[in-house]
Amino acid sequence: MKSLLSVRGLGRSDLEALVTGASAMRDALDRGDLAERTLAGRCVANLFFEPSTRTRLSFDLAAQRLGANVVTLNPATASTAKGESLRDTVLTVSAIGADILVVRHDEVGVPQAVADWTGRPVINAGDGVAEHPTQALLDAVTLQRHFGGVGGLRIAVVGDVTHSRVAGSLIHALPTLGAQLTLVGPKAWMPEDSPVEIITDLDSVVGEMDVIYLLRVQTERGGVIDDEYVARFGLHEIRAARMRPGAMVMHAGPMNRGVEIAEEVAESPRALVTEQVRNGVPTRMVVLDLLGRGAT
Amino acid sequence: MKSLLSVRGLGRSDLEALVTGASAMRDALDRGDLAERTLAGRCVANLFFEPSTRTRLSFDLAAQRLGANVVTLNPATASTAKGESLRDTVLTVSAIGADILVVRHDEVGVPQAVADWTGRPVINAGDGVAEHPTQALLDAVTLQRHFGGVGGLRIAVVGDVTHSRVAGSLIHALPTLGAQLTLVGPKAWMPEDSPVEIITDLDSVVGEMDVIYLLRVQTERGGVIDDEYVARFGLHEIRAARMRPGAMVMHAGPMNRGVEIAEEVAESPRALVTEQVRNGVPTRMVVLDLLGRGAT
Amino acid sequence: MKSLLSVRGLGRSDLEALVTGASAMRDALDRGDLAERTLAGRCVANLFFEPSTRTRLSFDLAAQRLGANVVTLNPATASTAKGESLRDTVLTVSAIGADILVVRHDEVGVPQAVADWTGRPVINAGDGVAEHPTQALLDAVTLQRHFGGVGGLRIAVVGDVTHSRVAGSLIHALPTLGAQLTLVGPKAWMPEDSPVEIITDLDSVVGEMDVIYLLRVQTERGGVIDDEYVARFGLHEIRAARMRPGAMVMHAGPMNRGVEIAEEVAESPRALVTEQVRNGVPTRMVVLDLLGRGAT
Repeated sequence: MKSLLSVRGLGRSDLEALVTGASAMRDALDRGDLAERTLAGRCVANLFFEPSTRTRLSFDLAAQRLGANVVTLNPATASTAKGESLRDTVLTVSAIGADILVVRHDEVGVPQAVADWTGRPVINAGDGVAEHPTQALLDAVTLQRHFGGVGGLRIAVVGDVTHSRVAGSLIHALPTLGAQLTLVGPKAWMPEDSPVEIITDLDSVVGEMDVIYLLRVQTERGGVIDDEYVARFGLHEIRAARMRPGAMVMHAGPMNRGVEIAEEVAESPRALVTEQVRNGVPTRMVVLDLLGRGAT
Repeated sequence: MKSLLSVRGLGRSDLEALVTGASAMRDALDRGDLAERTLAGRCVANLFFEPSTRTRLSFDLAAQRLGANVVTLNPATASTAKGESLRDTVLTVSAIGADILVVRHDEVGVPQAVADWTGRPVINAGDGVAEHPTQALLDAVTLQRHFGGVGGLRIAVVGDVTHSRVAGSLIHALPTLGAQLTLVGPKAWMPEDSPVEIITDLDSVVGEMDVIYLLRVQTERGGVIDDEYVARFGLHEIRAARMRPGAMVMHAGPMNRGVEIAEEVAESPRALVTEQVRNGVPTRMVVLDLLGRGAT
Repeated sequence: MKSLLSVRGLGRSDLEALVTGASAMRDALDRGDLAERTLAGRCVANLFFEPSTRTRLSFDLAAQRLGANVVTLNPATASTAKGESLRDTVLTVSAIGADILVVRHDEVGVPQAVADWTGRPVINAGDGVAEHPTQALLDAVTLQRHFGGVGGLRIAVVGDVTHSRVAGSLIHALPTLGAQLTLVGPKAWMPEDSPVEIITDLDSVVGEMDVIYLLRVQTERGGVIDDEYVARFGLHEIRAARMRPGAMVMHAGPMNRGVEIAEEVAESPRALVTEQVRNGVPTRMVVLDLLGRGAT
């Protein structure tokens, strides 16, 4: 693997290898083991053209734990302020000596463009409404660790699917790992053409699922929050009470509490949200390490 | 000590141990000794929800000198911009793997809340008008190094006491170490109820003090600068000339030159301001090291 | 050399030693060698009071590669926001423990002032319209590596000379290394008094030069872009076609494509722009290492 731009190029054995490696790395971190500094002397550039806390810090720490030098491009202080093109900014960061580029941008396809422009390994840390591959990977790690495996799980991805890059990656990754995915939400937010089942009535399936994966209503991408949405698709306590024993709730954060997820559900033992975050650093360490090795 | 949220929980022997350790660390830094990397593989998260230069850089460098990985949450680019709650942001940073959280916030009590939410060691780097414990510690280090001890020193803390978190910590720490503290300023800026002496006439005590500690007029917290304040409480050259031989001037910065402190006084040999800053990194190293060890 | 504030104090042998050292460091980086950590335990402070991408990241990575701790002052979150004077901010950063200060500011002379205030080694990373010494050095490295030497090269520096700190440093450094410099541009943008030849007609010399060095039209410093400028001084394809065989194009970036340089020229094999950026980190490593040694 040269870059991680999309989960679409990854087959089941690729995904399983990444999940297994990340889960082992998580165990090592929990034990307090120091990771091998496989990126010592290498440089990871964090190019976040959109605001981000969890993903940026997670990549930052993952790279540091592997011994890398980390440089961060802060959109607020970037030369694009001087009218420089995105391509020139990226080529400059590459020429400065970035060995791996981590890219988030609100336009679809920018990470791919960065890979094309620079010839360097690139990790897509979220591009517009398209993909967020490391999120899907860390979610798979979370499922693997909690359920012992992803295969056979019935998972509902609920909400603003068309505006969600998280959904964009989950839709491929989870079925490839053998999960049975159902998309749930208002018709307007569902893809016109989907390889997986689409349903507009959450209540009809909430009792059958092993996992309810709630998507953030992307108000900054045109999503509108209204009472009807909350009533029909929000996971409130009464609805959550109908979930199967052992069924779990996931959310990639940041959560709109009281909208797609009720306070009480977010705080309940069903919530895997913190586990998802915890699995982010080890997952990104495994991806960075892999790209740093230049493995194929 | 699990967290450093306030100086109020610290007794004289606790404070003395911290001061002695920080002073020894300062000597080691002055000699150019490399510190033991006791935080290697650990992560310190700098969560500065308010702008800061000196305190943020000081913690950043202190953590790096101990070998820690440092991640910094920049309020301008944080997910709170996406409407995430403070609690969720903090839980996320904790779950990413922050071993110690350094927190500054303009609301009183946030560092305590962060400690409660995360169960991790937290250092209060300034919360609203309440406390700034490491400032009081580094001030004690500065007094110890200059005077050979804090006990018996007569110290006037002058100015906007009620709006000053620096004063909030000094009021406990310095008397606990045996100093005789006097608060000086306009009645409106004095606490209603204080364990230490309150005086509204600086001139009546300026000639008796070993230390005049000037507080910044906190214009951003409602403080108003007027000519009367400067005339009555500003430490100008004529007033400073009445200080005892060997008496010193302190200020936690940033200084409003020409307001609470005159240019000539800030630049005079009486000023310990630079020493205070110099003692910041070793003081924070000792605190970080202590919390990193999980000592009680 | 205690500080690098200007190239004006550097003689030919100084410049040649820096260029040779930087070029050797570049070779070492290209081979993937880990640099000696000569700044381990030392602190480099990046004080960028103006937005910057390439220069800030380049210094950041250079310092990290030498093992330094790096702290960065972000103008957006600095205490100057609390009304602190520049001098107090700088003295604070110095007192925190910065061993070397890298300073960019939009006012001429600030790096010199920082050196005077702190007594610490300072690198001028660009001050107003005056100088940008490490840019001139890395340009000399680029010329040395491409042409095998700087002596005897005929170089045209084209454009907004009076507003360009890059030109401010090139005008001294390149002739000192034996190059024959010509300034080209509208009379209004040319110095009144210059030790080097000034010409207002690019076409009259474009065919004779070994290097065309294009300056950015500094719109943020009062430069106005108009069609006439582009027509007379922009390096478009037709004009570039008249260049000598082997003649090269340089630009310190960020480029205004379509203004001082045409898209096709920027992308042509004549462009040394990427090489310039690549030579930035090794050049800055050599300067940081030299200042860190406290050599004279």
